[in-house]
Amino acid sequence: QIDGARLWDSLMEMAKIGPGVAGGNNRQTLTDADAEGRALFRDWCEAAGLTMGLDRMGNMFARREGTDPDALPVYMGSHLDTQPTGGKYDGVLGVLGALEVMRSLNDLRIRTRHPIVAVNFTNEEGTRFAPAMLSSGVFAGVHDEDWAYARKDARGLTFGDELKRIGWQGDEETGARKMHAFFELHIEQGPILEAEGKDIGVVTHGQGLSWMQLTITGREAHTGSTPMPMRRDAGLGMARVLDLVNEIALSHAPDAVGAAGQIDVYPNSRNVIPGRAVFTVDFRSPDINVIADMERRLDEGARRICAAMGLEVEMEKVGGFDPVAFDEGCVAAVRAAADRLGLSHRNLVSGAGHDACWINRVAPAAMIMTPCKNGLSHNEAEEISESWATAGANVLFHAVVETAQI
Amino acid sequence: QIDGARLWDSLMEMAKIGPGVAGGNNRQTLTDADAEGRALFRDWCEAAGLTMGLDRMGNMFARREGTDPDALPVYMGSHLDTQPTGGKYDGVLGVLGALEVMRSLNDLRIRTRHPIVAVNFTNEEGTRFAPAMLSSGVFAGVHDEDWAYARKDARGLTFGDELKRIGWQGDEETGARKMHAFFELHIEQGPILEAEGKDIGVVTHGQGLSWMQLTITGREAHTGSTPMPMRRDAGLGMARVLDLVNEIALSHAPDAVGAAGQIDVYPNSRNVIPGRAVFTVDFRSPDINVIADMERRLDEGARRICAAMGLEVEMEKVGGFDPVAFDEGCVAAVRAAADRLGLSHRNLVSGAGHDACWINRVAPAAMIMTPCKNGLSHNEAEEISESWATAGANVLFHAVVETAQI
Ligand SMILES: NC(=O)NCCC(=O)O
Ligand SMILES: NC(=O)NCCC(=O)O
Repeated sequence: QIDGARLWDSLMEMAKIGPGVAGGNNRQTLTDADAEGRALFRDWCEAAGLTMGLDRMGNMFARREGTDPDALPVYMGSHLDTQPTGGKYDGVLGVLGALEVMRSLNDLRIRTRHPIVAVNFTNEEGTRFAPAMLSSGVFAGVHDEDWAYARKDARGLTFGDELKRIGWQGDEETGARKMHAFFELHIEQGPILEAEGKDIGVVTHGQGLSWMQLTITGREAHTGSTPMPMRRDAGLGMARVLDLVNEIALSHAPDAVGAAGQIDVYPNSRNVIPGRAVFTVDFRSPDINVIADMERRLDEGARRICAAMGLEVEMEKVGGFDPVAFDEGCVAAVRAAADRLGLSHRNLVSGAGHDACWINRVAPAAMIMTPCKNGLSHNEAEEISESWATAGANVLFHAVVETAQI
Repeated sequence: QIDGARLWDSLMEMAKIGPGVAGGNNRQTLTDADAEGRALFRDWCEAAGLTMGLDRMGNMFARREGTDPDALPVYMGSHLDTQPTGGKYDGVLGVLGALEVMRSLNDLRIRTRHPIVAVNFTNEEGTRFAPAMLSSGVFAGVHDEDWAYARKDARGLTFGDELKRIGWQGDEETGARKMHAFFELHIEQGPILEAEGKDIGVVTHGQGLSWMQLTITGREAHTGSTPMPMRRDAGLGMARVLDLVNEIALSHAPDAVGAAGQIDVYPNSRNVIPGRAVFTVDFRSPDINVIADMERRLDEGARRICAAMGLEVEMEKVGGFDPVAFDEGCVAAVRAAADRLGLSHRNLVSGAGHDACWINRVAPAAMIMTPCKNGLSHNEAEEISESWATAGANVLFHAVVETAQI
């Protein structure tokens, strides 16, 4: 058994770095706060006798040796970056849960055959630099490293420059490591486990995602002196497309969701009809055909709406991944661990994307989920109980140790 | 007759300060560029032998003496501040047209009975600090000066602090000056004069305005893992209200217009359902009852839409003015000047708000409008011809001189 109180203390300690405005965190990727969070994690890892590796994407790898020099390591971890108004657990539980597994292995003087490595992946959230799960994606060969370096934030700063600036770019080739297996502990970010009173989600699949960025172009003009029939209002066009997005997602319910989180109009002045609206539609489904259908209907519908209003529209895919089926062996190890610990569990499809979804392409992977209050995440009010965190970390501990002995 | 080429040169010279990105200007109020534009105007005024006055709101008054020490001055002018993506003429034509009148008076050695004063009013546009026409409003006693100083921009800087920072706060009590009359030359910002081939718009009325800022509050949540029925999407609520705004305005067409120019969602992250949307609805009509009806229907409709979606909505009036009827004597002076110069003209209702609308409350006022290409304004592509500018400034010259002799 891991030490739940120690895990909780570490979670609360990390949450002091990059505090939010309402009890959560703003520790966005490659900010000074991210650097501070990384340094704390490194110090804790070194205090636990682990050896730190750092790759060219800033992914951190804290290693505990095994007894068999030829055995590939078992990896576990998640991410320490947060949303701008994020919670204290999204990602962090998976990294500090992995650290707690290491500390418990030390306390219990357990030697494993395989080495074990705790990971912190860079820029999982994708808010500052789209797409999400950027560095696990480069690790898994999905994205090119130079392409990733060129991603820009809203101020025009690049991922590569910011990674260098905060001093966390390593020399190690990204993705050169081979993994025996990968386990990610994460909060559910949805309501199912809490509603059904289950301790653990055994994640068998992850739903797929499509991020389509739409740019609607009309004509900036005076809100007072421009007659209604002469207007080409990009904001109004966007409003109609947003309603369509909702309608498309609902037509596939409960097998799809859809919304737009990022919305900007230009020049954003009270007395100027917006000449341009830029927004990103987030469509998800466990069914790849449903995603394709939603993309097609958005494309068709946005064109129709905009044509009727004298607006132009462009669509660009700025992120996406296919639905994932996790490795059966790893999933079974998670389920067996929960059973062994006497914890209630059920299978889950992850609604969110996770680093494990990319890593699953290059190594056997699975995920463990814990409940979160009211299913709320990507909100500073995100909350879990200490006992949920403890249960999740215990399952991680057992699944990893079991896998590392084989 | 004024010197049209000299006026045009001055317009082009001023346009070099705070250049835009597409041929227009970004010389927003109380920025460094605004300070630079003010200094250039002051230098030009001093070179023309005028005496500069400056009030506590930063309004600039360049005076040419009259022959009668007891006669109140005739004022003319507009504003030098621009939209973030504004044109080279909106406001500027009225200020530099007034300067050109002064220069022509000097050239022609005309002495007037009344003194004549050229004015530059601070923050007419209202983009950086709402409401629009802020400083002419304080001058006319519509707004309290301390209230005006406390207006905040998007970064939280106050009008008062920024006015001090750029060094253009004067000692003179705002509104202490008494005016014999006020004339404002301005581009139409709409399509009517160009479409009908008229040289001059004789502005008899100005339509009224209502700026309602809506704040819709939902709940930030994960775009992937939050089931559709659990969502409280403030962005989607806003989209539906935007469609309603358009519907309300169209129901009163052609006697009303409506749109939203400023739109922000929070936290504005691709994978977070917006928890809050803030946007300003701009409704206008020449009929005060229509404005009241539009406000009422917006309030009712937004409440209905939001209640059905589990959202909360708050409305705050952040700007507004009633429809204006300009002074009959001043309007007649404008019409007579156009006739005397052999220029074609028609009566106009101003679609936009102008400093003259507030000044009309404390002095007899009227406006002269010139055509603008495609009716386009609040757009960097705003354009007028040199002959339109010349015709407008000539009408200003004649109307002002006529009024200053009486
Ligand atoms: N777990 C999580 O919130 N990941 C961010 C990527 C996504 O939007 O699913
Ligand atoms: N003339 C002008 O554009 N004034 C700004 C105030 C308004 O929006 O009408």
